[in-house]
Amino acid sequence: MTYLDHAATTPMRPAAVDAMSEALARLGNASSLHTSGRRARRAVEESREDLADALGARPSEVLFTAGGTESDNLAVKGIFWARRAADPARRRILASAVEHHAVLDAVEWLVEHEGAEVTWLPADAHGRVRAEVLAEALAAHPADVALVTCMWANNEVGTVNAISELAGIAEEHGVPLHTDAVQAVESLPVDFAASGVSALTMTGHKVGGPYGAGVLLLARDVPCAPLLHGGGQEREVRSGTLDVPGVLGLARAVREAVEAREAHAPQLAALRDELVRGVLAEVPDAVLNGDPGTGRVGAGPSRLPGNAHFTFPGCEGDSLLMLLDANGIECSTGSACTAGVAEPSHVLLSMGAEPEAARGSLRFSLGHTSTAADVRALTGAIGPVVRRARDAGLAGSRRSSASAGAREV
Amino acid sequence: MTYLDHAATTPMRPAAVDAMSEALARLGNASSLHTSGRRARRAVEESREDLADALGARPSEVLFTAGGTESDNLAVKGIFWARRAADPARRRILASAVEHHAVLDAVEWLVEHEGAEVTWLPADAHGRVRAEVLAEALAAHPADVALVTCMWANNEVGTVNAISELAGIAEEHGVPLHTDAVQAVESLPVDFAASGVSALTMTGHKVGGPYGAGVLLLARDVPCAPLLHGGGQEREVRSGTLDVPGVLGLARAVREAVEAREAHAPQLAALRDELVRGVLAEVPDAVLNGDPGTGRVGAGPSRLPGNAHFTFPGCEGDSLLMLLDANGIECSTGSACTAGVAEPSHVLLSMGAEPEAARGSLRFSLGHTSTAADVRALTGAIGPVVRRARDAGLAGSRRSSASAGAREV
Repeated sequence: MTYLDHAATTPMRPAAVDAMSEALARLGNASSLHTSGRRARRAVEESREDLADALGARPSEVLFTAGGTESDNLAVKGIFWARRAADPARRRILASAVEHHAVLDAVEWLVEHEGAEVTWLPADAHGRVRAEVLAEALAAHPADVALVTCMWANNEVGTVNAISELAGIAEEHGVPLHTDAVQAVESLPVDFAASGVSALTMTGHKVGGPYGAGVLLLARDVPCAPLLHGGGQEREVRSGTLDVPGVLGLARAVREAVEAREAHAPQLAALRDELVRGVLAEVPDAVLNGDPGTGRVGAGPSRLPGNAHFTFPGCEGDSLLMLLDANGIECSTGSACTAGVAEPSHVLLSMGAEPEAARGSLRFSLGHTSTAADVRALTGAIGPVVRRARDAGLAGSRRSSASAGAREV
Repeated sequence: MTYLDHAATTPMRPAAVDAMSEALARLGNASSLHTSGRRARRAVEESREDLADALGARPSEVLFTAGGTESDNLAVKGIFWARRAADPARRRILASAVEHHAVLDAVEWLVEHEGAEVTWLPADAHGRVRAEVLAEALAAHPADVALVTCMWANNEVGTVNAISELAGIAEEHGVPLHTDAVQAVESLPVDFAASGVSALTMTGHKVGGPYGAGVLLLARDVPCAPLLHGGGQEREVRSGTLDVPGVLGLARAVREAVEAREAHAPQLAALRDELVRGVLAEVPDAVLNGDPGTGRVGAGPSRLPGNAHFTFPGCEGDSLLMLLDANGIECSTGSACTAGVAEPSHVLLSMGAEPEAARGSLRFSLGHTSTAADVRALTGAIGPVVRRARDAGLAGSRRSSASAGAREV
């Protein structure tokens, strides 16, 4: 099986599996005061320190959550609530238009339900939120912005934002910036303090750690109301019994990913470049979406090293996905979270794509277990698969024009 | 080590550890459309069916969450929002006064933040919410109640509520009842459909499953707004990538716990009765709090079979806990989630206890790995420990009256 869907989820690193499996058999609620409880607490706090160190944060800035969706919801809603409570005028959210649905839908809920207003920050044709776009939006609303939210790197097309620059602009206006860095931690130099962001989302299963274990990095001076109330764990911002094995597995995976990153990222980019060349050689009219990946943004590449995202004109993405799957090659049409949804990707539309082109797109994402053989498997299969999908698409459109004709009668 | 804190967390069942450990090494996001994704989805759906079957629910009523706190928050806030949206008059919550903080604090947040009103349902001296108390509260507010929330069994004193009866009363008024059954599933006959409740919270780590894996059972006809927005997983009510290994471990643990329950519960009760007798023999003025445990409520016992909760007059609970811990015996003063908090338990205060008595209390909770040797270890140690705590308490009060005197000067 050729797995080219690491952006959806990537295999757990063996060291993280070991750390977690071992912890599953150990007893102790980290809130309990007895010996087992204190031992569990110590293990959690060591993991917190380790994570903080790997991500350029202070231990007290690490809040454990159940994953990326929860971290995004907590940051967006929690910071909005806290900032509006301190100043009722601050009820505007500036959000990039290409965010993951965990941010988009949280923002929309605040608009519909909590009286928020939103200014969507458009992305350019590469999927990037440009500094001047944010600067203009902030200048237009100097006194009513609660927060800015803009992802570090896009989960569909892999485009990297100049997050430090954006955070600097937000800071000039005294506005906190949250970034969803779920896709960034594995292969980009993510340093919380150096980036200047106020809050950062990450999650285990995108870096070789477990599902259900995520982090919100939250700067000490940034107010954030809780989303889950209860026992008051995690600085009273996130209640719920700590998942000790999950925390240990997460910390181990992040440590390993971050230590390997400097060497791994260029290898991943080389493999991805080979994949792009191979696909374009087999399907010359395929279009690589997003940033070309040859530039730099801050200290890292301008595109996620493991990401390749194409439009195959005249094809349905779902058909391509299924045909590749029948050939033992696994990939996705975009975000796994919206797989099976008939809507074209909001990311591609925001970048200016036509709905039909957006529907004919596929994402190939490489990760820490990817090999040259994976790339060869894809480049060997993609030509015939695209031809078959085009034949099916033509037959489909003939059928649909015939039935449209029938309806007219 | 003698572990008498199963109500805080109970050891994972080896079969659940195996199911989960094995799944950690398997790849596939359950939202992905390719073969690995579909395989992960199949495993999740089989677990969902298995859980539903074990808990008397339909598979479509099982929503996976990150644990008890999230399930409680989702039920209380989500049902409140959905019912109020359908009828703006319905903004009152009837909540028992002895709920876990995950319910209490969620209710209080709705009051402070979302315009909810609350009627607290008092518990009787045993910690039970009586049917007439609920009936009267509903009769007093026939048109403005959004939901009722009342736990199945109390986490501190172990008192079991007549949940079917309460749910029947709520149903007469067309009001959904949510119950926190976190402590009940392991040792009481919990059947969702038969109970008549609209929503039920449970979590893995209280039944020998993993941390970070919980369930909200939600009847199909009960509206519930999401707390976490995003990919739209779990009937659009709970977004977030499914934790496949956690779900598998949870289902395995619940299946095993439920199958063993009928045989296990009476053994547990016998062990607990031995513990109660032993403690009272060593410390004759200790007071067993809660229901005496000799009666029946519905098809089960009137008190959690594994629960024993005492007040030791003249002692500080924290001192007792630490002295027992030094003797290798682990227990708690109440809910682990509020361990270390100086406030006396709201549960005991609601039952009519004096703050001083509430502070001198300890919970011993037995579970699936408990043995007669555990009970003997406790009854052998408790006498000397209580004497030592009393001596320390007397010395402490002498010191504090001395310093109070000093402050008067």
